[in-house]
Amino acid sequence: MNASPTTFDEMRRVLRDLPGPDLQAQTEIVRRQAELTKPPGSLGRLEEIAEWLGCWQGRAHPRVERPRIAVFAGTHGVARRGVSAFPPEVTQQMVQNFLKGGAAINQLSAAIDADLRIYELDLDHPTDDFTQGPAMSEARAAKAMAYGMMAAEPGIDVLCLGEMGIANTTSAAALCAALFGGTGADWAGPGTGVSGSTLSHKIAVIDEALAHHKQAIAEHDPLTLLAALGGEEFAAIAGAVLAARMGRIPVLLDGFACTAAAAVLHVCDRRTLDHCRVAHRSAEPGHARLLDAIGQRPLFDLDMRLGEASAAALAVPLLKAAAVCHNGMATFAEAGVSGKA
Amino acid sequence: MNASPTTFDEMRRVLRDLPGPDLQAQTEIVRRQAELTKPPGSLGRLEEIAEWLGCWQGRAHPRVERPRIAVFAGTHGVARRGVSAFPPEVTQQMVQNFLKGGAAINQLSAAIDADLRIYELDLDHPTDDFTQGPAMSEARAAKAMAYGMMAAEPGIDVLCLGEMGIANTTSAAALCAALFGGTGADWAGPGTGVSGSTLSHKIAVIDEALAHHKQAIAEHDPLTLLAALGGEEFAAIAGAVLAARMGRIPVLLDGFACTAAAAVLHVCDRRTLDHCRVAHRSAEPGHARLLDAIGQRPLFDLDMRLGEASAAALAVPLLKAAAVCHNGMATFAEAGVSGKA
Repeated sequence: MNASPTTFDEMRRVLRDLPGPDLQAQTEIVRRQAELTKPPGSLGRLEEIAEWLGCWQGRAHPRVERPRIAVFAGTHGVARRGVSAFPPEVTQQMVQNFLKGGAAINQLSAAIDADLRIYELDLDHPTDDFTQGPAMSEARAAKAMAYGMMAAEPGIDVLCLGEMGIANTTSAAALCAALFGGTGADWAGPGTGVSGSTLSHKIAVIDEALAHHKQAIAEHDPLTLLAALGGEEFAAIAGAVLAARMGRIPVLLDGFACTAAAAVLHVCDRRTLDHCRVAHRSAEPGHARLLDAIGQRPLFDLDMRLGEASAAALAVPLLKAAAVCHNGMATFAEAGVSGKA
Repeated sequence: MNASPTTFDEMRRVLRDLPGPDLQAQTEIVRRQAELTKPPGSLGRLEEIAEWLGCWQGRAHPRVERPRIAVFAGTHGVARRGVSAFPPEVTQQMVQNFLKGGAAINQLSAAIDADLRIYELDLDHPTDDFTQGPAMSEARAAKAMAYGMMAAEPGIDVLCLGEMGIANTTSAAALCAALFGGTGADWAGPGTGVSGSTLSHKIAVIDEALAHHKQAIAEHDPLTLLAALGGEEFAAIAGAVLAARMGRIPVLLDGFACTAAAAVLHVCDRRTLDHCRVAHRSAEPGHARLLDAIGQRPLFDLDMRLGEASAAALAVPLLKAAAVCHNGMATFAEAGVSGKA
């Protein structure tokens, strides 16, 4: 890899030249699956996961021994508009909670022996209120992307991505509407728990942003829309997804905000997320719509809506299970088990 | 506990006197959930799982540190009727594969550091062909139940149940039809992979059994139907479910055959499976129908249909995640995080 990209133009060059799957590894995996001591296809999606892991890791024997969990935290100008059930300062307070080990993701990470990293964007300088102009400059968004790329270090088997940022489901809803069409009402939901008039206000704020950025939405450049409507944590997640692709690291995406960030890359080129799986279907209603838009079937549906990479972490044992079954099972010949009659 | 029950009459006495949930533990768990640093309810089903684990373990801080996986293997007279894609001897061959560590469940068990036990029923003496008479005597079924009860040893945190037995989806389909109504076509599916004329034959064999046992089905005694149409592994699973209840051990049920075995107890008394969760919705179509009949919402849906407790093992990390989040997270007060605005 050459020097890391640091501008949108450099990111666009990276996007045009992404590595594809390892088809030889994939072929070997499919061949071996058919010989393992089980009825053909009976491990269901675990078989598909083993194939996916192997073709993106470039190994006929996929590994899930060194998972990393990367949580990106960003502060949002639009939070001042009262779109969340929690006050804006909770972003920094929760970062402190992550650092002290008290959040859900700390427990989930420890349970699977993952390497948890918290990436703080420029928390003391929230993005601008995107109903009045772009949330951030393209330079700031590109810098956040470059920062996010650091999460995909060599040696990691799988990268779980997640976020923390009060008001970021407002940002995610606006970004999804800009990328895929629709209005605030189509994409907004309770987030941390708003309802009634606060939810109506959240929807109105999103529609205000969509009206303000009408021209950019019509021009439909995904990276420009990321800077206009995203948070810095969204840009960082997009960067991490790209760097993981270049580094042959499969990615687990978390919930609505995280998937919205990755969806920017999907709109650039629909093959860009082939090395990613979405861990779950969030209870945040926009997520189901977004999953349809990017053609991802989530691994599970447990009514979660926390963020913090919590669902991505929860999916790591599924990936590990897929890998260990594939690698460790005996074949019919090895075990002396009769095949199909 | 008094001496273990060894007859159907003794099993019926146990069924009439099962312990209920620990409501004090449940109350403490619900109270603590509301104080943890997350939006209320945002861990979704993990919160429900923590409550369920705690109220059946009798602890305000549930534990998932010593999971056991119990796989019961049985041989079926009806297998001689050609209802499976695999020959009858595969049951014993797969038991050898389990003992040598080559099966899927061996890899899944090792990945979660579980205590895997293989329980062989009387494999050299298959049950009788249940289209001609009862699969086994009530005494044999009661003995198998008593054998299964041994799987619920003290000190286990959670018990995963599963099975191996060529032709046992035929047995499960017949048993479900007898317990809940319907015909062979309503409950039969591909099992290990039959289709076309073999599937039609499987359905006809089930209907033949339902006709033969018409009188017993009309009398609708669940334990009698278990002996008439079940396999020994079904009886053992039912015994394990009962013993786990008495021993305050939450249970994870696996797929179609395993859930059918437990459903016998549900028909005895609908509260009997309150300490059980079904791990997944199997790709075997009868399972979805059975889940509706017993009112269970599975934890995930990964198109699996292997049996061997494979899906139950895969669900253990979800339970562990629920427990560690509940026990380890900081409260809003501890973390100095602002609550809802």
